[in-house]
Amino acid sequence: MSQSKQRAVVLLSGGMDSCVCATLAARDHEVAALHVSYGQRTQERERGAFSAICDRLRIRDRLVVRNEALSMIGGSALTDLKIAVPESHAIGRDIPVTYVPFRNAHFLAVAVSWAEVISAEKIYIGAVEQDSSGYPDCRPAYYQAFNQVIKVGTREGNIEIITPLIGMRKAEIVRLGLELNAPFDLTWSCYSREDAACGMCDSCVLRLRAFEAVGATDPISYIIGRV
Amino acid sequence: MSQSKQRAVVLLSGGMDSCVCATLAARDHEVAALHVSYGQRTQERERGAFSAICDRLRIRDRLVVRNEALSMIGGSALTDLKIAVPESHAIGRDIPVTYVPFRNAHFLAVAVSWAEVISAEKIYIGAVEQDSSGYPDCRPAYYQAFNQVIKVGTREGNIEIITPLIGMRKAEIVRLGLELNAPFDLTWSCYSREDAACGMCDSCVLRLRAFEAVGATDPISYIIGRV
Repeated sequence: MSQSKQRAVVLLSGGMDSCVCATLAARDHEVAALHVSYGQRTQERERGAFSAICDRLRIRDRLVVRNEALSMIGGSALTDLKIAVPESHAIGRDIPVTYVPFRNAHFLAVAVSWAEVISAEKIYIGAVEQDSSGYPDCRPAYYQAFNQVIKVGTREGNIEIITPLIGMRKAEIVRLGLELNAPFDLTWSCYSREDAACGMCDSCVLRLRAFEAVGATDPISYIIGRV
Repeated sequence: MSQSKQRAVVLLSGGMDSCVCATLAARDHEVAALHVSYGQRTQERERGAFSAICDRLRIRDRLVVRNEALSMIGGSALTDLKIAVPESHAIGRDIPVTYVPFRNAHFLAVAVSWAEVISAEKIYIGAVEQDSSGYPDCRPAYYQAFNQVIKVGTREGNIEIITPLIGMRKAEIVRLGLELNAPFDLTWSCYSREDAACGMCDSCVLRLRAFEAVGATDPISYIIGRV
């Protein structure tokens, strides 16, 4: 009983979570991969990771979009070079300076527009609530609310955001990725460097802890060997 | 009892509705005006209208952003030159080919990000349900849903979209604009031309009918004198 796979748009930043999310989506769907460069510090490296992951996963439908609004608006250490990326101290307490105001809505808007035009009914995003940095746009309630916007604000109302990783710990995501043979070697998570990961920002620390917790070695290069 | 006005972000396309909306917002707020160019046919003229309206209303905080995603994605007569802008035939029946898939979410995402950074608690948008072209993202339910996304997806959750015109007929909007001395002479509504308005697209027809209904003369130039 062969049936052609349904299309899904996958938001693929090139980080660890989105890589696992894309690998998962590609099992069941014909994936169309979306990447947004928004003037973040490591955008060149992330765009390279996106392309390499698409190649490895044999994803041919790709859309790479520049968003100029987020860097013009600023207000985040990721887009404003005058605000330093902090070393990780108190993950999960407050919303950190790496929070890019309302960023995920920009990405989802593009994903929904594209899904409407190419007739995809699912949008996958690798948002993670626990173990994340406390960003308000990484919580289930946010995606529930956004799905309602899609339901009433599109032509057919039949597109849905799927967040398969949202309830997982980072260690579980690493474990799942290893099971699925997700191309971790091609990913980029560091907030501050493009040559080798810093090992000290929130994103690096969470990633290194997760690999350590499952007894695996993170295949990318770090300036500081923390594992 | 003098008190400084609170800030509000106003989405100002340069059309008739957004012009009245901005004029209204400027009575009670210190307005920060946002304009998005998205590769639509008449973007140069609209951007000019935006600047001229800001000058007339003495709005100094301005943000002009290019959105490249919508034209890359296409799927609308406004952004894809291969799809013709139709003459107005059956306004209000179906969603027309001038619908830009999920467009307003792109604009609102920018508005919310900006509002977060400049501490504005209101976002004004001149969306109109009745008498509009049947776009799904011009209905009250859409803005209610989007406000929920903002509530759960921003740092403070204290930003709200205001749609003062959403329940009005176009004729009422013209009447209100005339009362407020809104600069209709500087606006641009036509979907297809930039030199003089075509008088035949949905947007021109709705506008001309509205001025006619209140017994006023539309101050902009038309190729075809319909009034």
